[in-house]
Amino acid sequence: MAYQTLLQYRTPGRGTSSITGDISDAVADSGIETGLCHVFIHHTSASLILCENADPTVRSDLETFMVRLVPDGDPMFEHMDEGPDDMAAHVRSILTKMDLTIPVTNGRLALGTWQGVYLWEHRHHGHHRKVTVTVTE
Amino acid sequence: MAYQTLLQYRTPGRGTSSITGDISDAVADSGIETGLCHVFIHHTSASLILCENADPTVRSDLETFMVRLVPDGDPMFEHMDEGPDDMAAHVRSILTKMDLTIPVTNGRLALGTWQGVYLWEHRHHGHHRKVTVTVTE
Amino acid sequence: MAYQTLLQYRTPGRGTSSITGDISDAVADSGIETGLCHVFIHHTSASLILCENADPTVRSDLETFMVRLVPDGDPMFEHMDEGPDDMAAHVRSILTKMDLTIPVTNGRLALGTWQGVYLWEHRHHGHHRKVTVTVTE
Repeated sequence: MAYQTLLQYRTPGRGTSSITGDISDAVADSGIETGLCHVFIHHTSASLILCENADPTVRSDLETFMVRLVPDGDPMFEHMDEGPDDMAAHVRSILTKMDLTIPVTNGRLALGTWQGVYLWEHRHHGHHRKVTVTVTE
Repeated sequence: MAYQTLLQYRTPGRGTSSITGDISDAVADSGIETGLCHVFIHHTSASLILCENADPTVRSDLETFMVRLVPDGDPMFEHMDEGPDDMAAHVRSILTKMDLTIPVTNGRLALGTWQGVYLWEHRHHGHHRKVTVTVTE
Repeated sequence: MAYQTLLQYRTPGRGTSSITGDISDAVADSGIETGLCHVFIHHTSASLILCENADPTVRSDLETFMVRLVPDGDPMFEHMDEGPDDMAAHVRSILTKMDLTIPVTNGRLALGTWQGVYLWEHRHHGHHRKVTVTVTE
């Protein structure tokens, strides 16, 4: 029987925020010992990633890389209804994905030592973001 | 007990097609109330994405971006057995992924308001594509 | 009830290695007939992909593409603690992902004819890599 819970965040604008603690808490609340923890963000301009959790320059470098790969306001984009970061945010989300699944082992989220779960806001302004966590056995 | 069904598509060539309705129907047929819906494409030159579902220019801009990121017939590619879009299609599929998992909540596919599920054909010619949907609880 | 097993690899340095046989064996060992097989790598500088399994130039072209997309030692990167491939390996892993889910059908891993599962080492030196396989029904 699956356990499911909804998490809600107010992002401060473009950038990554750790949500590892909340996901670990959901696994603990589920009472499931061996299974899968699925994390899903219900938006198309924010994504979920696993990233190195020790040195913050990894995440700032990642942002720098993505700014170069998918430039805001690129003249090739037609879809600019909500500003120059609108279409870039959609492309960034598709390249980094909105779903993520992590094993549950001995009742805990089985991340590697250096792995953290991050919500990546791709819009410049802060947004209200919904994340569903589902734990199955 | 998992529910599983096979969907089959004839794509019209390169581009994205909504398959949200078929995935939602599979969830309804499963009778599962709370769980996960996994979608998988059994190919290496087509992929599955979640994308904004309201303005078609989002998907045409996405195509334009990908054409620039992974140019057909790039001289760095050796693998061109099936033409200039052959290796590009493999790279595009790996960057956008062949598997996707979405929560099931209250018996329904729990997509965000603006999220749709799209099959992305990366070859210029149409192909027969198989997609397996698995719903677990 | 989920089945779970840990696989361990010693990679020979940057490049892709097939792990399809080991994943298929885990599915057979699980005894599960219909469900999902989840594969997870517990690191942030190696990833898991589905790739064409017939012509090895597909994987060498993929490597060539990634070297151009995410250059080692790119001057825009600050995080270089472990050398010029350090930050590049993190970016490559995030773009190609650390988790993968494949359907299980009739007791077997339901890959397409041309799909193989590959562990992609992104560091130049070989590393010890842990992969957890979870099979659910």
